Amino acid sequence: MLYAVRMDVAIPSDLVPSDRADLLARERAYSQELQRSGKWLYIWPVVGMYSNLSIFDVLDNDELHEILWGLPLVRYMTITVTPMAKHPSDIHAG
Amino acid sequence: MLYAVRMDVAIPSDLVPSDRADLLARERAYSQELQRSGKWLYIWPVVGMYSNLSIFDVLDNDELHEILWGLPLVRYMTITVTPMAKHPSDIHAG
Amino acid sequence: MLYAVRMDVAIPSDLVPSDRADLLARERAYSQELQRSGKWLYIWPVVGMYSNLSIFDVLDNDELHEILWGLPLVRYMTITVTPMAKHPSDIHAG
Amino acid sequence: MLYAVRMDVAIPSDLVPSDRADLLARERAYSQELQRSGKWLYIWPVVGMYSNLSIFDVLDNDELHEILWGLPLVRYMTITVTPMAKHPSDIHAG
Amino acid sequence: MLYAVRMDVAIPSDLVPSDRADLLARERAYSQELQRSGKWLYIWPVVGMYSNLSIFDVLDNDELHEILWGLPLVRYMTITVTPMAKHPSDIHAG
Amino acid sequence: MLYAVRMDVAIPSDLVPSDRADLLARERAYSQELQRSGKWLYIWPVVGMYSNLSIFDVLDNDELHEILWGLPLVRYMTITVTPMAKHPSDIHAG
Amino acid sequence: MLYAVRMDVAIPSDLVPSDRADLLARERAYSQELQRSGKWLYIWPVVGMYSNLSIFDVLDNDELHEILWGLPLVRYMTITVTPMAKHPSDIHAG
Amino acid sequence: MLYAVRMDVAIPSDLVPSDRADLLARERAYSQELQRSGKWLYIWPVVGMYSNLSIFDVLDNDELHEILWGLPLVRYMTITVTPMAKHPSDIHAG
Amino acid sequence: MLYAVRMDVAIPSDLVPSDRADLLARERAYSQELQRSGKWLYIWPVVGMYSNLSIFDVLDNDELHEILWGLPLVRYMTITVTPMAKHPSDIHAG
Amino acid sequence: MLYAVRMDVAIPSDLVPSDRADLLARERAYSQELQRSGKWLYIWPVVGMYSNLSIFDVLDNDELHEILWGLPLVRYMTITVTPMAKHPSDIHAG
Repeated sequence: MLYAVRMDVAIPSDLVPSDRADLLARERAYSQELQRSGKWLYIWPVVGMYSNLSIFDVLDNDELHEILWGLPLVRYMTITVTPMAKHPSDIHAG
Repeated sequence: MLYAVRMDVAIPSDLVPSDRADLLARERAYSQELQRSGKWLYIWPVVGMYSNLSIFDVLDNDELHEILWGLPLVRYMTITVTPMAKHPSDIHAG
Repeated sequence: MLYAVRMDVAIPSDLVPSDRADLLARERAYSQELQRSGKWLYIWPVVGMYSNLSIFDVLDNDELHEILWGLPLVRYMTITVTPMAKHPSDIHAG
Repeated sequence: MLYAVRMDVAIPSDLVPSDRADLLARERAYSQELQRSGKWLYIWPVVGMYSNLSIFDVLDNDELHEILWGLPLVRYMTITVTPMAKHPSDIHAG
Repeated sequence: MLYAVRMDVAIPSDLVPSDRADLLARERAYSQELQRSGKWLYIWPVVGMYSNLSIFDVLDNDELHEILWGLPLVRYMTITVTPMAKHPSDIHAG
Repeated sequence: MLYAVRMDVAIPSDLVPSDRADLLARERAYSQELQRSGKWLYIWPVVGMYSNLSIFDVLDNDELHEILWGLPLVRYMTITVTPMAKHPSDIHAG
Repeated sequence: MLYAVRMDVAIPSDLVPSDRADLLARERAYSQELQRSGKWLYIWPVVGMYSNLSIFDVLDNDELHEILWGLPLVRYMTITVTPMAKHPSDIHAG
Repeated sequence: MLYAVRMDVAIPSDLVPSDRADLLARERAYSQELQRSGKWLYIWPVVGMYSNLSIFDVLDNDELHEILWGLPLVRYMTITVTPMAKHPSDIHAG
Repeated sequence: MLYAVRMDVAIPSDLVPSDRADLLARERAYSQELQRSGKWLYIWPVVGMYSNLSIFDVLDNDELHEILWGLPLVRYMTITVTPMAKHPSDIHAG
Repeated sequence: MLYAVRMDVAIPSDLVPSDRADLLARERAYSQELQRSGKWLYIWPVVGMYSNLSIFDVLDNDELHEILWGLPLVRYMTITVTPMAKHPSDIHAG
């Protein structure tokens, strides 16, 4: 099942640099593992902003909720989730 | 170059049924041709709404503008365009 | 899977009374059938507004999209869908 | 009487971990007691957000106000209350 | 139980004058009867707008919903309902 | 002259408890004195929020501004003022 | 007493030209009479918009409400009223 | 003096085609004449929308107001004006 | 040339009292000097808020920008600038 | 390719003055270098605000994203990017 997820990130500017670097490294590893698993289909940064638009393909709402709550950066994120369906005109939808 | 495009559609409820059917058929054909060309990568309806989230891969702003202005339904659409870049964590970005 | 769906209804005031009555009757029948099927769990009107908050329990995004697009009143509705998960404190969640 | 209550939580990221854990434990106990009492009918997390949609069945506005002000987390919450009525199409409304 | 109700009115400018006059007369009569009954405590126009802020004292959500849906002008209104409780500092609250 | 005043309060969570208690006591005393004077007609908490809707009956804009700026909590408040008039349907308006 | 009043005007584009001209003439006469009376202190168009910012000096809320409801264009206006007081730094406030 | 002007256009879909064509032609001529005069420095369409961002260099507020009110399409436009100054870092500002 | 300027002030509550007093004194002096010069025509506090609506009469955008950036409080302000023109109905506009 | 970029800046008021000065100097140098390269076509401050409207001419989304993320002040900025195309009425568009 597909979801579009918009993540707007705001890391406090007074976070200790080493903590910040560690956090970003863990976020990157977490994301790439999910990408390899096929759950996290796409991740595109929004030009000029500390935000991304991602497409997830997961079993259901609960799995997505668990994945998003597992994000190391989740505490500093505003997340918007848009559930998506198949479009009748989608030539890939078969 | 990638863009996320949100299209919210509001067709006047007093449109003559035959005009409405013709319009939707032309929209479908227009979209599917662009999908086959690889310009229109994805089209996902937003659950519960007469809206879709689409991903376009085009040369530049002008080409996207031309494509969107060619949509038969454009007159009844509110369109939001989000330019996107490559994410450093994107395992597909190479 | 659970979704909260808010439906704000705005029927054009110039709709022919008989059409309006027929539309409302079909909407009522459609809703009650889905309630009996267990898909449409709850429907509560929002006090003072032509809106309701409903809770749906369906297979996935696509099924919900199909149900909502089948609503006789859908053309006159603004619909917002909130995907929901299980809460760790929910004593019913087992 | 029924109310839909949306709770958006934002706990300051610099809260001492032990205080945070204690706060969450008290919140969980407080909520589960009210669930067992039948006052707090449902609690569903909103996917991807530190928010929940809850349904309360209480005597009146004052009781709901007292319950919500008793939440251990209330200081870190933005709460929206939607009073709800019985829907004429609700097959359970009798 | 107390509710603050904001009513923003927008009567279509092309409504036949006699219908408009009739509608306003019925609205006035309906409101004054409820005021005499003590249900509709106060009605204050918002300066410069076709809106009013009203205070209702009714049994519960359902009664308020019924009253508001009975307003002759309801079809042309945007209504916002704010449930209110007793304030600990309120010298009248006893 | 009547005004509806909405006060949304946000006291910093790191305020020293004794200062907080003193502040609330002074706010309560200040409000009750104005209630006894008839200037502050009503004060109703909005269910679930640290907000109240109050009705003031004062000489003019300046007096209201002075009263509101005298609130001990004013520094932590977002205040919205709605000037109100007499409604032609108001049976009490004489 | 001073009020800032913002008037955003939206005259239906299908209004009969002669009606439109008559309406604008009556609006102009109505405004200029109030300006001569000193009630309507200033009227400044907002650059690029069919809106103006006006300053009124009137007895009280009721008088302002009456004046604004007397505007020939009021039916096509969105009006926002901001009550204003005397500023301690205002060298004219005496 | 420089202003950024955003123009969002919404031409009623039921406008007679010949009127629409004439209107667009007059708008184009009006704009190009001002461009040649150096008043209308730039006009860029916003991708995907019937909107443009324009930069004007005019004497003062009044001249801009006159120019914008002279636009043949002004009746169908929502216009936002942003007054701009010289930036200390602007290498062209001299 | 005329501008309406809305200034919403939010001074951090943890500012050292003496710094705060000095800041306010410098703001007052700065404003009164500009008022005496005729640049700052009017300054009206918005009832109940730490905001004012001011009217400026200056040469051009740059001068206004310089004046506003010179405000001692500017760092704690949200400022909105509305450029204004002469109204054809304005009896003072000559 | 052209983009309009709005930058709203909010530097924490408790930033050490020397750090602030260094940051602003680096921002100025960074911007002027890009202006000289022709990438950063225009930079206009918005009157009264710590914001600017800039026009960029770059290869594609990725280049713009890189440029904006390289801004020394980016951490304290809210950035909105509007992709722009060529206007058919633009006399310079050739």
